[in-house]
Amino acid sequence: MTAHSAIEASPLVAHGGRLDAARRLFPDAPQPWIDLSTGVNPRAYPLPPLADEVFTRLPDDDAFAALDGAARKAYGAPAGADVVPGGGAQAFIQMLPRVFPAKRVAILGFTYAEHAACWAAMGAQVDTVETLDALAGADVGVIVNPNNPDGRSVAPQDILSAAAPMSQRGGLLIVDESFMDFTPEASVARFAQNESLVVLRSFGKAYGLPGLRLGFALCSRARGAKLRAALGPWAVSGPALAIGARALADQAWRTGAARACAGDAARLDALLTQARFQIVGGTTLFRLAARSHASRCFAYLAARGILTRGFAERPDWLRFGLPPNESAWARLAAALESVDGG
Amino acid sequence: MTAHSAIEASPLVAHGGRLDAARRLFPDAPQPWIDLSTGVNPRAYPLPPLADEVFTRLPDDDAFAALDGAARKAYGAPAGADVVPGGGAQAFIQMLPRVFPAKRVAILGFTYAEHAACWAAMGAQVDTVETLDALAGADVGVIVNPNNPDGRSVAPQDILSAAAPMSQRGGLLIVDESFMDFTPEASVARFAQNESLVVLRSFGKAYGLPGLRLGFALCSRARGAKLRAALGPWAVSGPALAIGARALADQAWRTGAARACAGDAARLDALLTQARFQIVGGTTLFRLAARSHASRCFAYLAARGILTRGFAERPDWLRFGLPPNESAWARLAAALESVDGG
Repeated sequence: MTAHSAIEASPLVAHGGRLDAARRLFPDAPQPWIDLSTGVNPRAYPLPPLADEVFTRLPDDDAFAALDGAARKAYGAPAGADVVPGGGAQAFIQMLPRVFPAKRVAILGFTYAEHAACWAAMGAQVDTVETLDALAGADVGVIVNPNNPDGRSVAPQDILSAAAPMSQRGGLLIVDESFMDFTPEASVARFAQNESLVVLRSFGKAYGLPGLRLGFALCSRARGAKLRAALGPWAVSGPALAIGARALADQAWRTGAARACAGDAARLDALLTQARFQIVGGTTLFRLAARSHASRCFAYLAARGILTRGFAERPDWLRFGLPPNESAWARLAAALESVDGG
Repeated sequence: MTAHSAIEASPLVAHGGRLDAARRLFPDAPQPWIDLSTGVNPRAYPLPPLADEVFTRLPDDDAFAALDGAARKAYGAPAGADVVPGGGAQAFIQMLPRVFPAKRVAILGFTYAEHAACWAAMGAQVDTVETLDALAGADVGVIVNPNNPDGRSVAPQDILSAAAPMSQRGGLLIVDESFMDFTPEASVARFAQNESLVVLRSFGKAYGLPGLRLGFALCSRARGAKLRAALGPWAVSGPALAIGARALADQAWRTGAARACAGDAARLDALLTQARFQIVGGTTLFRLAARSHASRCFAYLAARGILTRGFAERPDWLRFGLPPNESAWARLAAALESVDGG
């Protein structure tokens, strides 16, 4: 299904970030729109000046090596693991069912819908399960950790325990760590050489640069060779290589960004609680909140130029990204104050 | 096989553009290196200023629609065809064998090696054939048109004739038009709604921006839907969408670039002929020239900081890209004059 048809079918449950669709559905909303529908850091990594060669030359081995070194260190990947770069974590979610086909897939739910969609599209039988133990019978298990949208977190030791029985029969546990950057101690990237693990990392979310399209699969060398063969040469653009290598090496920025986002997340929780939402969870890049008839609240906020994220399967849930500036905080606060009179 | 292992195994037959490897193999060569190993236009499309949102937001439907409109017009694609954008023509070469699997593949040779490599990697029986008629027995045929490296050109009517018997049994003819931009009259893009055709286009070569990673597959809506499902959302970066939409809409630049490259190609032919090369062919973005012991000539030029492209299977061939400036023309001319004494 293309992004276009998804938004037409059900705008409330499309991917976040579809401001263009929101503008069409709510043409009278005040400008500018405030996009709280994604889990993208609103304080983006400062864009460095880019040399022309970043665009005018094919990315070369040196550029890939620089990115590899920075990513390996940022993620704590062991020397025995491969760190495969690609055009976003989504690119790997699309590719894994084709490169490592499987019949029975179990996904720890409720979670990001693309895992189930991509496995099902390749003919796998996909079950959404509620417990780690229930992953054990499948050929492939999927854990989004921390989970999107509710932030549920699985301890590294529990992930390794879930992977162990899979390794005994060639199974694979996919751990999607797209929102792990600010809680590195909870990552299993340091175990990524394990033959039964594939760890996915997203660059764009924590660094606020999703337009770059950069993500990684951390895995054994053998699995990495298969992913690289499927990706082919030059799977990452020159701008993504240059900016990614620089940003991933910037530990000081990451520490500051983690602190700033944690502060924003706490401020958002307070605001939502005041508006009689119950905080379900989330990460420091987004908060999931519950309230009866949340979908009406979605429409009320959208009419005021504030785009949030609803879930067809969970009509009481709304997910909120971090407001990007004080003006956005003020508009959100005013809208939430008046929501019951709307 | 990764790009890295390819260059280690045989630097002369790796992909073009590997200046990093050339520097290691010829550490004493004068700086700066002149890279004539690719078919990339040295006069790149002028980079426009990019809004921060190009990086900080997920590419949205409007951005994809703008690129679609510009590409459709630039390529002359009919309304009934899909124009699927991806991360370079290579991304589609990697993906076609997975999305449209086939047992018997025939490739009109001698040509760009990645087609055969990608089909063989997926278990297809790949035959390199010499004539269009010999494509007929295969499930999938591949024609690179104009051909890389020799510039052999197949007329649109002959391509349609080759596709016709394939359509009768669900076969597919892939026409890789990566070097077609400056000879649009020879393109079959205007027939791309044909169910048995997939036409590949590269953005980076003619526009001199291969680091962007942008290419297209033009095909029927049904085949396009399958390619889009495999690519997933956001398969093209924000910078590629913004720059691609602008550049593809710029007919005046394209006309001027075509004329400039044609002039350079003629100048290069004269220089190579003077140096006792025989011009085999090529396109206006590269020239293929023959000379006995061309591989020695490759090394002689490389020692002088000029990287060309050799072919293991054709030891008498060298491919030359267009020199980027007068200093490069002068260094190439001087090196070619002295090549016999080297």
